[in-house]
Amino acid sequence: MGTPMSEAATQVLVPAAALVGIGFALLQWLIVSRVKVADAFDADNGYKDRLIEEEQEEEDGVDNLEAVIKCAEIQNAISVGATSFLFTEYKYLSLFMGAFAANIFLFLSSVKGFSTEPQPCTYSPGSICKPAVANAAFSTLAFLLGALTSILSGFLGMKIATYANARTTLEARKSVGMAFVIAFRSGAVMGFLLAANGLLVLYVSINLFGLYYGDDWEGLYESITGYGLGGSSMALFGRVGGGIYTKAADVGADLVGKVEKNIPEDDPRNPAVIADNVGDNVGDIAGMGSDLFGSYAESSCAALFVASISSFGVSHNFSAMSYPLIVSAMGIVVCLVTTLFATDFIEIKSVREIEPSLKRQLLISTVLMTVGIAMVSFLALPSEFTLFDFGTHKVVKNWHLFFCVAIGLWAGFVIGYTTEYYTSNAYSPVQDVADSCRTGAATNVIFGLALGYKSVIVPIFAIAFAIYTSFSLAAMYGIAMAALGMLSTIATSLAIDAYGPISDNAGGIAEMAGMSYSIRERTDALDAAGNTTAAIGKGFAIGSAALVSLALFGAFVSRAGLGAVDVLTPKVFIGLIVGAMLPYWFSAMTMKSVGRAALKMVEEVRRQFDTIPGLMEGRAKPDYANCVKISTDASLREMVPPGALVMLTPLIAGTLFGVETLAGVLAGSLVSGVQVAISASNTGGAWDNAKKYIEAGASDHAKSLGPKGSDPHKAAVIGDTIGDPLKDTSGPSLNILIKLMAVESLVFAPFFAAHGGLLFKLF
Amino acid sequence: MGTPMSEAATQVLVPAAALVGIGFALLQWLIVSRVKVADAFDADNGYKDRLIEEEQEEEDGVDNLEAVIKCAEIQNAISVGATSFLFTEYKYLSLFMGAFAANIFLFLSSVKGFSTEPQPCTYSPGSICKPAVANAAFSTLAFLLGALTSILSGFLGMKIATYANARTTLEARKSVGMAFVIAFRSGAVMGFLLAANGLLVLYVSINLFGLYYGDDWEGLYESITGYGLGGSSMALFGRVGGGIYTKAADVGADLVGKVEKNIPEDDPRNPAVIADNVGDNVGDIAGMGSDLFGSYAESSCAALFVASISSFGVSHNFSAMSYPLIVSAMGIVVCLVTTLFATDFIEIKSVREIEPSLKRQLLISTVLMTVGIAMVSFLALPSEFTLFDFGTHKVVKNWHLFFCVAIGLWAGFVIGYTTEYYTSNAYSPVQDVADSCRTGAATNVIFGLALGYKSVIVPIFAIAFAIYTSFSLAAMYGIAMAALGMLSTIATSLAIDAYGPISDNAGGIAEMAGMSYSIRERTDALDAAGNTTAAIGKGFAIGSAALVSLALFGAFVSRAGLGAVDVLTPKVFIGLIVGAMLPYWFSAMTMKSVGRAALKMVEEVRRQFDTIPGLMEGRAKPDYANCVKISTDASLREMVPPGALVMLTPLIAGTLFGVETLAGVLAGSLVSGVQVAISASNTGGAWDNAKKYIEAGASDHAKSLGPKGSDPHKAAVIGDTIGDPLKDTSGPSLNILIKLMAVESLVFAPFFAAHGGLLFKLF
Repeated sequence: MGTPMSEAATQVLVPAAALVGIGFALLQWLIVSRVKVADAFDADNGYKDRLIEEEQEEEDGVDNLEAVIKCAEIQNAISVGATSFLFTEYKYLSLFMGAFAANIFLFLSSVKGFSTEPQPCTYSPGSICKPAVANAAFSTLAFLLGALTSILSGFLGMKIATYANARTTLEARKSVGMAFVIAFRSGAVMGFLLAANGLLVLYVSINLFGLYYGDDWEGLYESITGYGLGGSSMALFGRVGGGIYTKAADVGADLVGKVEKNIPEDDPRNPAVIADNVGDNVGDIAGMGSDLFGSYAESSCAALFVASISSFGVSHNFSAMSYPLIVSAMGIVVCLVTTLFATDFIEIKSVREIEPSLKRQLLISTVLMTVGIAMVSFLALPSEFTLFDFGTHKVVKNWHLFFCVAIGLWAGFVIGYTTEYYTSNAYSPVQDVADSCRTGAATNVIFGLALGYKSVIVPIFAIAFAIYTSFSLAAMYGIAMAALGMLSTIATSLAIDAYGPISDNAGGIAEMAGMSYSIRERTDALDAAGNTTAAIGKGFAIGSAALVSLALFGAFVSRAGLGAVDVLTPKVFIGLIVGAMLPYWFSAMTMKSVGRAALKMVEEVRRQFDTIPGLMEGRAKPDYANCVKISTDASLREMVPPGALVMLTPLIAGTLFGVETLAGVLAGSLVSGVQVAISASNTGGAWDNAKKYIEAGASDHAKSLGPKGSDPHKAAVIGDTIGDPLKDTSGPSLNILIKLMAVESLVFAPFFAAHGGLLFKLF
Repeated sequence: MGTPMSEAATQVLVPAAALVGIGFALLQWLIVSRVKVADAFDADNGYKDRLIEEEQEEEDGVDNLEAVIKCAEIQNAISVGATSFLFTEYKYLSLFMGAFAANIFLFLSSVKGFSTEPQPCTYSPGSICKPAVANAAFSTLAFLLGALTSILSGFLGMKIATYANARTTLEARKSVGMAFVIAFRSGAVMGFLLAANGLLVLYVSINLFGLYYGDDWEGLYESITGYGLGGSSMALFGRVGGGIYTKAADVGADLVGKVEKNIPEDDPRNPAVIADNVGDNVGDIAGMGSDLFGSYAESSCAALFVASISSFGVSHNFSAMSYPLIVSAMGIVVCLVTTLFATDFIEIKSVREIEPSLKRQLLISTVLMTVGIAMVSFLALPSEFTLFDFGTHKVVKNWHLFFCVAIGLWAGFVIGYTTEYYTSNAYSPVQDVADSCRTGAATNVIFGLALGYKSVIVPIFAIAFAIYTSFSLAAMYGIAMAALGMLSTIATSLAIDAYGPISDNAGGIAEMAGMSYSIRERTDALDAAGNTTAAIGKGFAIGSAALVSLALFGAFVSRAGLGAVDVLTPKVFIGLIVGAMLPYWFSAMTMKSVGRAALKMVEEVRRQFDTIPGLMEGRAKPDYANCVKISTDASLREMVPPGALVMLTPLIAGTLFGVETLAGVLAGSLVSGVQVAISASNTGGAWDNAKKYIEAGASDHAKSLGPKGSDPHKAAVIGDTIGDPLKDTSGPSLNILIKLMAVESLVFAPFFAAHGGLLFKLF
């Protein structure tokens, strides 16, 4: 049962890979920082005199000094707005974190009546494990660590994004290729920091917790699951709060600016324009960062938990036990090489090469990682071992696990490419949607919804195939590792993903700073590719969430001591149907929140246009701060009910109805939520790009629908606005809904198993 | 184990109730026919001279002779169009029926290798049952009977509706109350004919099949399940085909007429207006009739099948065995009394009383039926008996079954009232949606989608409560009886439901015939109430479909010999997640079909406006027939792929992947499809009524949004158009999807159990 790789090697290589990742991120940051923009502007003292000298001799798009100073000014406003929102959000969240941490401790320590005596182990009969109170304390600690890492991931992502946006705009003066590289490098900073931090904190926690737990790995890895819960619960509020923030501003700005006043998107006269750009950073960047960190933390925890009650745990084989961490470490190395293809090996020369280059990243990282997984699987795993499979034990070989991880990885690839097909305006689905704008907004919406529904088919078959194969090969451990496989290239996926909002912001800054047309055309092209990659990122987030949730669900069922989850028992079935309803309830809340907040924004924007003389003519400045405040207030208030729905459902279902019903709820919300999430994201992405397709007018067909301001274009704008809350608020929040309920159930499983099902016990 | 009610009493009372229902329907038809319209017009010879004399002396709304003749003319055009479409549809369907019947026979007779030898019974060990070939033959026969009854139900409904529409218009000249009574009586004709025919054919079939089967009730009731399959498969094509027909015409007519040409709905200058009105009759009437007949047939079959393998079947207790039929018979009597409240006991004096009167029908029938169920349960059931419960036997008392049926009935009531709350413009949800039109179509769509999602919550809890309670009391038999309870007042629900399209047509005819404003105001009020009742009817259809599918699913699992359906086995889980995807796939197909057909319609309508001189000025007649042809062709062609998806999925899943995966598919499509169906229907209903709310301008708030042609009204029209395929095509077809896959699986269960799962057997 030994592994080729020794424990010592594992103990060195895992943290080393994490540190390499962090170093690489810092290097990218350094390169990005060479583009000077901050120097042009000092937030405290106004303008400095040293300006971007070295670029003065450059080519066509050189804009005047005023535009550059404006860039710096706008960047500063966005950065200040985003930082201040996140600080306010985190202030409220720290209250929640404290309260929920207390909750975890109380619930879990009540399992054995707050006894501090050591207890018999659950899975290793005859052994003695640490007391429930200790598990409760360490679960709480892990929860807090996960929450903090999640916050850090989101915050750092936002910082680099707001640092990079104006730099991308300025580089766009030189060439589209240079702008692309800056945007992509900045995305990579976020991707690598997040992947490496996530791994490092997890690795350190396991080692520190191990000092107390010693040989009780059952308790150790049970309490580590709190890390996933912490990560995902912050991600929930980050996604929902950020999503409401960004879409309230975006929808509000568009409804008055584009529709009523006929001024372009990101026009500096629009009072909501800064709030809109802040929103991209707190929603799409910080929210997405927390979300993917959550998925990563949860799939690692699910895999570790299942492994700890299998032969790895029983025989205390540390290298094999750390297999999930080693896969992630390998992922960092692979992504590092992949990144070089985009930034150094291949140069982007024209607008048309952007999207293929991003797609190539996905392909390269997937191919390289397949080799990486093979290496890791043969080095870190014994050639044969047994896994826990709902009470029985299953004999598994190391190449079985290679297939599990690789299938997850390739399923992610299929989902990514399918998403691209349905949301990129290079293919017929989006072009059909654009074409339907001829007959107005109604047909645009009907075709868009149909596209979203249809885009679910291939990803679901990919997920189903991954589930069936990995489950057959290695039971629930296989599922968890498939999820981790999909996330193993997280640094690259996140780099691609963060690239989108950075380019979007860059375009906004170019517009607001009054850059020349050719520069805006370049940033628009970057942005259009970004819409597609954002959809791809969401596809990954959802696909991995589905696998992670299933793995967590399996771990929960094991931990709750259920032998089976039989749909044909009434307790399970009612859970299933109510669980399938939750994504709808949740979406209703978040969409209504966006709608309500957007209406407020509309009123404020209209008020400013009506009462500030000279605003429309560009002679007076709008009151950006008031719009930022409306978005902030709305998002902080409106994120509470959907957050409560997700956080309380497992507690209520488990406590009142018991583990069978809760298992039903988890399965129902999983299978229904995935569909709603994928269709919402893709519908929204398709509408956005259908609009961009008409605006860009790059083909005869597109030209026949345009130009901006034509009737088909107006219909396309309506579709785009409807898609905003679908693709950036409710859709992406749903994967957190399904993951979070699963991980919360797992953490509270000991409590539910001991005290759950009150209602059925009473009657 | 004896029952108070003898077998002889059962044999007399069940057919007697059915005949009373048919008689009552004919009586209503007679009363409706007293309104003379057909005499004014002779389809073959042009105008006759004897015209509607007896009404010449009537009050305010008397219109000139020309308008009356026009009414007759339009009615004739609608009736001819609808009849010709249905005949064409049935011609294609008869091919399908023949092919599928052959399929059933082949698959089922192959179970025992086409042997004609008697076989040991499945559930009564030691007894000898009829050969599989006989079961195959009788299942096929039952399938054909179900299909024919379904066609008959739809066709008769269409006939009475097209007979009643112009009569309602003409009665509206007298008073809104008289018009209401005519529309409602016509709805009742359809409701009673369908309920009574469904019961009678089932009763007669059981008795005739019994002549061959004798004591082999297992085989008898297994083959009777073909009746449900036949009913539902016709309903699928009726709903999908009719839904595409009606919405292609409706959307096409609106997009050019209302949006581009600014002419009112149902304006006779619009070439698609006849196709639109034909569509109401073939989609909402014939489709809905087939749908509810399917639900009724399936829940009866599911209950009978489960009963036949329980103590009723084993001890050959005919009265207890016929309990589902007796409940339906009692339902006909109760609905008869209920109808009198609307038509005779209480008179409608003003527009505001229409909706309460329809709601009261629901309340009265539910209260009376509760008493009826109590009587039936104590008379027809032994005080204690045992039921089959997945291999074990469960002891049940007669009052347990009273609760099962009553809970189903009241769950339907809750669903109906909730639907009314979310779709009637008397309450805040629809008013909020209307208000959001202030900021344009985008917010209208966002609020409307959110409303639909939210409207799912209460119905799902009602369904979950009904399932839990009835399952706990009487296992799968309880679920089947709860479904039948919800459908026991089907005659009244259908009367309410059919009332909607009849009023819609009446309004259309009033507009086209150029009736005076006051008359159109009355028909509009009838129509607005009809929108809400249509949504209620869809709520019933979906709620009952959920219960029916679960009962059929349970019966399938029993018949397939599965002990449990464990979500945590990979075979089941992949079925679950793929099943949950199917409603999306199906909706994508149907919505795209409507979109595509509507685009064609738009082109044709534009072409006519452009090329027929004098059309816009009303001097020339449009070519209605061409639009009818476009709708007909589109619906017949486009109904094939979604139909194939539903019909083939169980066959493919069962044959290739086996019964576990198929069970997962059924559960997944059930829990996901219910949500999609409810939210789609209610979103569409709410948009329609938000538009009507603005048009009617009945409150200060509504006036501030109007009048017709204002920007908010235009936004509301866009929402209404988007809602059309949601509420009339994809939404209502989804309940057939979930029912049909379940009943098909049940019918083919012996084959799948014997030969299924080829793919897993190979690997």
